[in-house]
This record gives sequence, structure tokens and C-alpha cells, in this order.
Amino acid sequence: MTTCKTCCSSTPVPHFSKAGTPKGDSFIQQILALAARPDVISFGGGLPSPEGFPLAEVKAAADYVIDTDGKRALQYSSLKGDPALRAIIAERETARGCPTTADDVQIVSGSQQALDLMARLFIDPGSKILVESPTYLGALQAFMLCGPECVEIPTDAFGMNPDLMGEECRGARFAYVMPTFQNPTGLTISVERRKKLAEKAREYDFWLVEDNPYGELYYGDEPPASMRAFCPERTITLGTMSKVLAPGFRLGYIIAPKSVLDAAAEMKQAMDLHTATYTQLVTARVLSQGLFEEHLPKVRDIYRSQAKVMLDALDEYMPKHPEITWTRPEGGMFIWLTFPKGVDASEVMKKTLASDVPVGFVPGEAFYANNPKDHVNTCRFSFVTVPAEKIVAGVKSVAEALKTFL
Amino acid sequence: MTTCKTCCSSTPVPHFSKAGTPKGDSFIQQILALAARPDVISFGGGLPSPEGFPLAEVKAAADYVIDTDGKRALQYSSLKGDPALRAIIAERETARGCPTTADDVQIVSGSQQALDLMARLFIDPGSKILVESPTYLGALQAFMLCGPECVEIPTDAFGMNPDLMGEECRGARFAYVMPTFQNPTGLTISVERRKKLAEKAREYDFWLVEDNPYGELYYGDEPPASMRAFCPERTITLGTMSKVLAPGFRLGYIIAPKSVLDAAAEMKQAMDLHTATYTQLVTARVLSQGLFEEHLPKVRDIYRSQAKVMLDALDEYMPKHPEITWTRPEGGMFIWLTFPKGVDASEVMKKTLASDVPVGFVPGEAFYANNPKDHVNTCRFSFVTVPAEKIVAGVKSVAEALKTFL
Repeated sequence: MTTCKTCCSSTPVPHFSKAGTPKGDSFIQQILALAARPDVISFGGGLPSPEGFPLAEVKAAADYVIDTDGKRALQYSSLKGDPALRAIIAERETARGCPTTADDVQIVSGSQQALDLMARLFIDPGSKILVESPTYLGALQAFMLCGPECVEIPTDAFGMNPDLMGEECRGARFAYVMPTFQNPTGLTISVERRKKLAEKAREYDFWLVEDNPYGELYYGDEPPASMRAFCPERTITLGTMSKVLAPGFRLGYIIAPKSVLDAAAEMKQAMDLHTATYTQLVTARVLSQGLFEEHLPKVRDIYRSQAKVMLDALDEYMPKHPEITWTRPEGGMFIWLTFPKGVDASEVMKKTLASDVPVGFVPGEAFYANNPKDHVNTCRFSFVTVPAEKIVAGVKSVAEALKTFL
Repeated sequence: MTTCKTCCSSTPVPHFSKAGTPKGDSFIQQILALAARPDVISFGGGLPSPEGFPLAEVKAAADYVIDTDGKRALQYSSLKGDPALRAIIAERETARGCPTTADDVQIVSGSQQALDLMARLFIDPGSKILVESPTYLGALQAFMLCGPECVEIPTDAFGMNPDLMGEECRGARFAYVMPTFQNPTGLTISVERRKKLAEKAREYDFWLVEDNPYGELYYGDEPPASMRAFCPERTITLGTMSKVLAPGFRLGYIIAPKSVLDAAAEMKQAMDLHTATYTQLVTARVLSQGLFEEHLPKVRDIYRSQAKVMLDALDEYMPKHPEITWTRPEGGMFIWLTFPKGVDASEVMKKTLASDVPVGFVPGEAFYANNPKDHVNTCRFSFVTVPAEKIVAGVKSVAEALKTFL
């Protein structure tokens, strides 16, 4: 075998693009790897509870699809996605206050693909985009591949505050927001702030990419309507089946004005032709059989009770200190904790991992576009995958570790 | 509602990126739209014959997966893909002459996603890549989003000819080749040319992206081994389940040296987290039950007999003319036709579409990276979706139309 000319061994060096050049394991990945031991109580994941998966419904739907429409289920299909599935999604959106037709919906392979698609549709290297502070980690990963300049939207204890958005927002390609049960904070922005955000989008000429994976997972009252109710002409809403049905299907959707939807379909064709026909037909069947009505209340019950267990444990065990605070979400999967300035949540986590009751969670710095090291005193806890008794033991263990830093 | 500042109406203009700005319907899309009428005999599609879909096997496998491993099937899973599926793919590659382990395999959402991933991993704006002339349309679509400069590899009646590759190839990010039953020509390059291509890749320091969707669909003898047998250290092989199982699953894979595979996994995470768990487990079950051994011979039989019908019809009905030629594929799904210089295949197609026996096919210019208008006298016929009697009637109709141009 001829050896490589560039590195003088038999393993030549690939000519990667700028975006493709591996970044290597990030600090956060290293931390999460530490917490991957099977004995660790994990507050880290955003995985839905498998107790909530509708196995019998999926099995019956899969049989039905092959029996009644098998050849279509296994064939290539349309770029936009299955018409029946798009119609069900549109009906649901309409019922929640945003009139929507099947034509307004593009099916994608999970909402991570929707984020990647948004990045590629809107971001050139150096383009300005607006993001919450903190914001969803997976969105940052997708956006960063396209090289944007991120401007952080100021936030407070009630989430992002559009009153503080000014000239720096003008002409941004889009603002990426998760107004309902946000990942990572669990916060929901109010109707008043939604209205104000719509005004700012018009005033400063930016579009809204509204990510709404958790809107169905409310524990009490329904959350405020989608940003499409306040700013229909500039809002692109991203949704997913991962939290209400199952993540293993990798099904998500985009609802947007026609100009964006047409461009999205053109891009989607080059990205993967279309999303799997089979999983779309199975999902449409499951949903048409009343999954939202029958199944979602059960998932909400599980999450509501687990959230309560974690909040109660935090109230009981966390050290009483004016600078130790956490959010009290009314839906979704996450609680956001703030420790006193100077306490590094990664160090607290390492301490718990070395204890008799090791606990993993996600250090908060991972969720900031700019200057993450200014936010090392924050972290995200998820309560959905861990059984109640382990939630209590885990919170107690973190509280013990934290005390040694005060 | 406040009106938009930039266009003075209530429909604001999205701030698209360069890649995201819609190109509008291409000439080719307009032509294909003409041929989408239900009465048209379509030689256009690359859709596999649904007669070949293993419906009973898929149904049994889906039931088995939910019954035995349902919670895992519906949950998030690993970036690289299901270990059992990767192991089966690796075994298959090993049996075909390229020693492969599950660790060498990355699962993707169809081979179109693999092409997009290659584009993003390797191409910066202006990067040089090498492509066959003609080459696969879907690959060009994916690559073009990243703005490469395409250098065409000279081809002859036996496919691409590496003897003619020179200094212009040095330092290309990669050469994209489909050496076996190529789309669009149906041609397979010989063992000698494969060896020569490996030498050229080393001499001029480029990598090989080998697309192999049709390798299993041989009608007689097995085709030559993958480029990985000739140039393992520089070859990235893309495979798909779309032709041997079903396209509706959108399952493909990448086999590559570790340096590329690690970078691909990092990129894949930002693109869509991972490919659907459910379809991976169902596919692994179908394959482990002997699909390759029992099912593939049936698919090959269907395609072999349909190819023969089309080739016989071409021999019988096409005008005898020294400049009217076509390829005689020994596998795959396509025949490539060349008409006399000056005859535009799109015009021939329009003529057949206006006739009593309307026929659609794909004008050849769509398959050229550079100067497509130099190749308007070519076209691609597929024989796999259309029943035998319609193949004969369709060929006869094209032949009649073509005669009026001579």
C-alpha cells in the first residue's frame, strides 16, 4: 500500500470543512461521561419516562398500517410528509388557538432536524441571531455549525424579557425562543411578554423561531397560546412527537408561513428526501385513535407527581441560603437551580459523584451562547426518568455536597 | 397588526441565508411535473417495485420488537445507531470481501442524509470536489448547498476512466463515485479501473466517497468488490436499505475510517440526534431473519426480467441509427440513452407526453455538474416500477416520437 503523502503513515488526513472539523469532546461531554455510570442517579437526561410509552397502541397501529396500506408505508413518499399526519397536527394547533391547515405543516425527522433546517435556511457565517440566555443546548449546537453571531436576549426570573430588547436586535435573521416550559429553566413567558415580543419582532424586523416541545405537558392550566397567535406572519413553530408519543420515532414538524415552508421543503429534499413513511403512517394511526385525549393525561400525571417530589425534596433538603434558588415549573421536564456566585455546579456534581449516593445533572454553562463561564453557578435538573425514591435520595445527596461549598 | 417595514404589506420577507434562498422550480422539476399525470407511463422514478416489499416480514418484526424490546424501541438511542443493526451490516460487508466491524458503521436516515453529511463534513464554499460525468442528481443537490467547485471525471462507454485523472484532481476534498450499476448510466467500472482509481486517490491526495445503493441488485454474477477492498484507508462507503428492504424506512449507513466516522457522528448529533430507534430495531429483526438470503433473490428476479423486457423493446423498436445508443446494465435500476447530437431529450419527452401513449423519463442534463446544456441529447430510463406490457408500449411510444426528430 502506498503511504499517505501528507502525514507519512498509512492513515491519511481527511480534508474536513470548517464546520466538519471535529471539535473533540467538550467540557460538558466529559462531565456527562463521568455521570454515565450505571450506579448514578441521573437528573441529567431529557429522556421522557418510558412508563409513558403507548406500546399496545403502537403495536396495533403498526399492524393496521401494514395490513391496510403496507405498500405505501414502505415506499418513498412526499417531501412535506403524510397528508393525514399533517391534518391531525393542524387540527390540534387549531384547537389550541392558532388556525392551521395541513398545508401549513412540514414533517421533519425530530425537532433537532427542524433546528438544523432553521440554521441552514437563515444563517450565513457572521449572521446575527437572537437567543435566550440560557437557551436550549441542542439548538446552539445546530446553529453554531453555520457560524452565527449570537445576541443574548436579557432574561429575569420570569424568563426572557422583551422590554429590554433594543436596536441590537434589528435585522437579526431570527430570534430563537422556547416560551413554554423552557429547556433548561422550566419557565413560561406570560401573555403580556408574548405580545411585547411580537411587537419587537415587527419593530426590529426579525422572525421568531418558536420551539414548543413541552407545551402539551402542563400540570395545571393550559399554557398561553403559541407565538403564532400573537405574530402569525413572522412565527415559525417547531413541534415534536418525542415528548407526547415517543422519541424513538424521530418525528417533528414545522408550522410556518408559506414563504418559509416552501424554502424548508426545498432544503429538506437535499437533506434526506423526506421523513420515514412508515413511522409517519403508524403515528397518524396512533393519533387518530385518540392518543392525545387518552394518553397525554397519563403522561402529565406522571410528570406532575415527579415534579412535586423533586420540588418538595428541594424545599426540605437544600441549604437555606438567599442565593440558592430554583424555578417552580408548571409543566415540562426541568428545574433550573442557581447556587451562590463562586460555587461551580460542575464541582458540586463531581463531589456527589464521589459520594455514596452519586448524582448526575447538567452544569448550566452548557446553555449559554456567550460567556458560559459567567454562569458556572447554575445547573439543570430533570425529574422525569428517575423514580420518586431516587429523586429524594438524589436531591439529598446534592444538598449535602453543596453544603461543603458554602 | 403592524405591517412589515421592509415590504409594506403584512407578509414580511424572511432573511434567508445564501444556501436557504429558494431556487424555485428547476427546469427538471417542471419537466417532471409534466410527467406526473396518472395516465403517463413513468420511466422517470427511481422507486423500487413495491411488489418486492416484504410486508409479512416487516409486520412480524414490528410485533416482535414491541413485544420483546418495546420501551427501548420507542426511546432515544445512540448516535451511531443500533449495535445489532450495525453488526449485521458489518457481517454483510465482510462477507463481500471488506473486513468490517460494527464500530466501522454509522447509521443514517437514508443515503441522501449520508450525502448531505459528506457535503457538510468536507465542503467549504469554493472547495474542489470530483464527480463523475454524469453523476447522481441527488448527490449534486446535496453538494451544491455547500458551494463546491465541481471537477468532472472523464467517462467513456465503460464509465469513469481514472487513467484520465491528472493534476486537476490534486487536493480535492473527495471524489464522489458510484462504481457499481451507476445512477444514471447503469454502468459498472472494472476491477482494473478500481485499482487505478485507488492509485490516483493516493497520488493526488483525495478521499473517495463511494455510493453503493445498487450493489446487491445484480442480475448475473456479483459485481467487483467495494472501493474499500482497493483503498481502505481513503474510502467512505455509503449504503442504504432503500433498495434491498424498503425506502419508506429511510435507513442508510456510512462505513469509513475512524477519523471520518468520529466527525460524522459529531455532525449527525447536530443534524437530528440519531436515526429512528424503532425502524432500526425492526430492520435489524427483518435482516436477522434471513431477508438478504430469502428476499433479495426475488427482488433480483423482478428487476432482471424487467430490464430484459426494456432492453428487448429498445432493440426492437428504437430507430436504427449509429448515434442512438443505450447502456446494457447487469444490475441496478437504470438504462442510459444517448440520442444524436442536436436532438433534445426534453423535446422528445414533450412529444411523447402529447401522444396517445404518454411516457415520462428524466432528461440527462439533470445529471451533469457543469455545462448541462451540452448533454441535452441524453436521458435516463428506469424499468423497475412499470409492468412489462407498459414497458414495451412506453418504449415504442418514445421510439415513434424520436423518429420525428431524425
